[in-house]
Amino acid sequence: MKLPEVIKKLSGSLSELPSIGPRQAIRLAFYLAARGAESNKNLAESIRELGNAKICERCFFIHQNRENLCDICKDASRKQSAIMVVEKETDLISLEDTGRFNGRYLILGAIPKTGLLEGWQKLRLQNLKSFIEKELGGKAEEVILAFNPTSYGDFHASIITKEIGSLAKKVSRLGIGIPTGGEIEFADSDTLGNALQKRS
Amino acid sequence: MKLPEVIKKLSGSLSELPSIGPRQAIRLAFYLAARGAESNKNLAESIRELGNAKICERCFFIHQNRENLCDICKDASRKQSAIMVVEKETDLISLEDTGRFNGRYLILGAIPKTGLLEGWQKLRLQNLKSFIEKELGGKAEEVILAFNPTSYGDFHASIITKEIGSLAKKVSRLGIGIPTGGEIEFADSDTLGNALQKRS
Repeated sequence: MKLPEVIKKLSGSLSELPSIGPRQAIRLAFYLAARGAESNKNLAESIRELGNAKICERCFFIHQNRENLCDICKDASRKQSAIMVVEKETDLISLEDTGRFNGRYLILGAIPKTGLLEGWQKLRLQNLKSFIEKELGGKAEEVILAFNPTSYGDFHASIITKEIGSLAKKVSRLGIGIPTGGEIEFADSDTLGNALQKRS
Repeated sequence: MKLPEVIKKLSGSLSELPSIGPRQAIRLAFYLAARGAESNKNLAESIRELGNAKICERCFFIHQNRENLCDICKDASRKQSAIMVVEKETDLISLEDTGRFNGRYLILGAIPKTGLLEGWQKLRLQNLKSFIEKELGGKAEEVILAFNPTSYGDFHASIITKEIGSLAKKVSRLGIGIPTGGEIEFADSDTLGNALQKRS
């Protein structure tokens, strides 16, 4: 059955978004078409307002400051020589919410399933290298590669470690272990093995 | 950690949509903020163009016809006395794609988890009853309640059957059985029992 033109166009735009498949895009388009014009005006307006957002020139987080740096990067009390490389902005938020890290971040963007970093991701890494060379005298205190402990994450961590290893006193990754509230019985043996090794 | 204002506003709008949770809404908002302004302009434009869509005054499907009826409802070759009641527009599309139904539809909207139909849903049912009384002389040939075979669907089918039973020669529901390509071993006993009873 032919979809109405407005639905086809909108669902096409929606299915470009990550984690929204073509079926969900069509469902969402119908939902938006059927609901009031007022709510849709608000949504379109919120999207347009993204034009006011800026990307931090140091860590690439979204911000709305007058300067070109986000709140974290312009905070003089934070250690600029400890850099946590994360994939997504939401990873940064989760890590920041722990209150256990007082350095700066670098948002690398989601690691592509092709296994190769995109051009703009390589530029971000290059940006970090220049920062370490110019601002930190060629040596960062620590670079933490906060990627998910998956095979993609492991693979890229090892590549990036090689690439920036000479620019940091220490390159580390997040600890692997049983999550709080988790059950030993259901943990995979890789997780359990690591938990055993890193016991405290 | 405080979210940037533009992200907070947009993720709020996005999480109002069905099947998009608060976390996914934040992820999507960051994605949209980081990607090019051009794609976002297209998306906002597609949403604004929904203003050109109309809702069929008979079945409540989305259309862009000059008249107030959708393609199916204005099609004189289709039987107006057979009415299929569906929850969602996407259900209508799937059923229409079978090519096995030549009647008209009524889109009731998703059945709420509260178990009670919303006011606007009751109005749609009322609309159907008036149609049967005025256009079909008080008796439809058949009303098919094409709801999902879940406990919500069953519950509402039984309520609606009572409500419109006197206005139709027959009120039916879709057959329950093993889906094509499915495996007997993994079918639940309710499905299997029905498949056995309706064997052909």
